[in-house]
Amino acid sequence: MFDNKVVKGYTLNVASNIVFVGRNPPMSYVLAVLSGFSSSKGEDVILKARGRAITTAVDVAEITRRRFMKELSVSKIIIGTEELPRDGGGTRAVSTIEITLNRALPTEKVVQDADDGNVEKKPVSE
Amino acid sequence: MFDNKVVKGYTLNVASNIVFVGRNPPMSYVLAVLSGFSSSKGEDVILKARGRAITTAVDVAEITRRRFMKELSVSKIIIGTEELPRDGGGTRAVSTIEITLNRALPTEKVVQDADDGNVEKKPVSE
Repeated sequence: MFDNKVVKGYTLNVASNIVFVGRNPPMSYVLAVLSGFSSSKGEDVILKARGRAITTAVDVAEITRRRFMKELSVSKIIIGTEELPRDGGGTRAVSTIEITLNRALPTEKVVQDADDGNVEKKPVSE
Repeated sequence: MFDNKVVKGYTLNVASNIVFVGRNPPMSYVLAVLSGFSSSKGEDVILKARGRAITTAVDVAEITRRRFMKELSVSKIIIGTEELPRDGGGTRAVSTIEITLNRALPTEKVVQDADDGNVEKKPVSE
């Protein structure tokens, strides 16, 4: 079903453009974010992480924005808590983060430039 | 100048209500946040952290909100990058986070209730 070479190191939910950040080095998730933007028509990729991986998720967002996609912006950050079952019974609370990365699609501007002329252009003075 | 027992374990900038989160356990910073809210008249306390401490900062925000101040909300989260000088020369990039915690002051509602009557109340129909 999946190409393991591509999937190994991160989980990319293609349908909804979610990258789950875990224990691998940031760069593997940066790759996932870039492929998430290039493979889909969407403008958003969401990074999700919990526990120690929260720091990695912030690193991934910053590396992607600074080195690879300057036009990227962080449109939303949500923090929360998840209750995970503890080994000896009961639950323990783990912090979570969701970082939504947004790019302004350049293709939209191209569509505007390739105006087919049907739209009436009014002069500034009436 | 400072009471070391209180200051030990965290840094609290009283003037601007900023708590710098470092390598100590989350609870010491939770204490700093709570004392930040109680000692000042402000509605905001800002958690600042970088690198590995980012996870701790999120833990502090979540623990404070869930266990101690249910009325607390996260009003803003900013992520960024700082360039730190490397030992061997040059710089290395470190991710940063700023979490602004906000409480709705109950005293404000009391002030509204204790209206002195100077405000004209217009009926709905004119």
